[in-house]
Amino acid sequence: MNCNVPTDIWFSFEGFRTRGGQTGDHVDGWGIAFFEGQGYRLFTDTAASIQSDIAHFVRKHRIRSTNVIAHIRKATHGEVCLENNHPFVRELWGRYWLFAHNGDLKDFEPKLNGRFTPVGTTDSEKAFCMIMERFSALSTQQADIETLYATLASLSQSISQSGTFNFILSNGEYLFANCTTDLHYVIRQAPFSTAHLIDKDIMIDFNEVTAPEDRVAVIATSPLTDNETWEVMKKDELLCFHNGKPLPLSA
Amino acid sequence: MNCNVPTDIWFSFEGFRTRGGQTGDHVDGWGIAFFEGQGYRLFTDTAASIQSDIAHFVRKHRIRSTNVIAHIRKATHGEVCLENNHPFVRELWGRYWLFAHNGDLKDFEPKLNGRFTPVGTTDSEKAFCMIMERFSALSTQQADIETLYATLASLSQSISQSGTFNFILSNGEYLFANCTTDLHYVIRQAPFSTAHLIDKDIMIDFNEVTAPEDRVAVIATSPLTDNETWEVMKKDELLCFHNGKPLPLSA
Repeated sequence: MNCNVPTDIWFSFEGFRTRGGQTGDHVDGWGIAFFEGQGYRLFTDTAASIQSDIAHFVRKHRIRSTNVIAHIRKATHGEVCLENNHPFVRELWGRYWLFAHNGDLKDFEPKLNGRFTPVGTTDSEKAFCMIMERFSALSTQQADIETLYATLASLSQSISQSGTFNFILSNGEYLFANCTTDLHYVIRQAPFSTAHLIDKDIMIDFNEVTAPEDRVAVIATSPLTDNETWEVMKKDELLCFHNGKPLPLSA
Repeated sequence: MNCNVPTDIWFSFEGFRTRGGQTGDHVDGWGIAFFEGQGYRLFTDTAASIQSDIAHFVRKHRIRSTNVIAHIRKATHGEVCLENNHPFVRELWGRYWLFAHNGDLKDFEPKLNGRFTPVGTTDSEKAFCMIMERFSALSTQQADIETLYATLASLSQSISQSGTFNFILSNGEYLFANCTTDLHYVIRQAPFSTAHLIDKDIMIDFNEVTAPEDRVAVIATSPLTDNETWEVMKKDELLCFHNGKPLPLSA
């Protein structure tokens, strides 16, 4: 989720977490990270999100954030343990970067220079470290968004030669979404309407919880609601969301 | 806390968090991190620990860990915000490192090479980044514990020229404790006895919750219990705890 004002993700999270063990089979741990200012809160657990005490807490706690990344894991590489849970975090240029990956990279063994090293054993964390390493080589301070976009677009296409590389990456200001096979997004803005979850019979009227200038982008592997128009991202499409909408960038 | 088996910190946390707004004035946020395997869970909040919903959750959730770092903040440098909360986290050599500082460094502006950059504005995070930078220069893989100890002892004495530098640093295996002014520790091992908190009228009988081979070191600014013998650390003393006891290392 990427927004122009701090927004409560409870509605989307309610549908999303249901896929971790009830309406979906991604039961090998889960995680959610909320940027707050330059900091972040990360909640993660090895239990399935539908059963996890921490997920119940997150659901009730109603944290507001402009950038949120959530992930439910179906283990393909690496055992079920905390260090293999997404989102992963690293610091670069005095900002935290968070990364979550959906997909499976085969025989993916990038040579890394040691600046960023995986702690766990997933293909995903290797890819994240490779992105951070490539970014860090651009500049000693944060590169401009055009450069970041072009670098990431090129690298993502290269990495996706090894398999499926749908991912979300954010530094709390920009949120990148890369699609290899499955990624959808919806922009919610005035005039607001109602939305109904696919995974659970819950309806919300956004008119009751928003201000006219609010804008929220929700990006997910597959749509979370059945009465909104979700945009389908194309193969090898990289979008950079900022203040609740994609920026007009191209590689 | 550093232990030889995963241990529940609820008893110590119950006393500790009381100091964040009730028996103590460290009300500017708090944090606690639990290592679990190579991963960690970090709970942090800008609310005082005595009032924080997340602290209530941690108290009830009873997470077991061999290495835990907790901190209650009294802001001296930097505003009250999430990115200024301790413990801070960085990855080095494929391990997460967690750091919490008690004290105040005056005019502390180290030159950093950019490998680790503070996200927030505290003196503490600057010192942590300096430690990580110095460690990273030692080797491309984790240096041996003797080298880490000697490097940290020397650097800590240098940093403490700028002020008070009591800190805890852990990579989930070793837990370093450095004392400039105030740091105490207790080792709990067989034969176990009872303990009574200073900050709250709670008693525990460790015989009921331990096995004979368990060993737990608890390190705190000031003792948490009033019927145990807490060792007083000396000025400029650096200890490295492993499996619940200090290793016999010297610089």
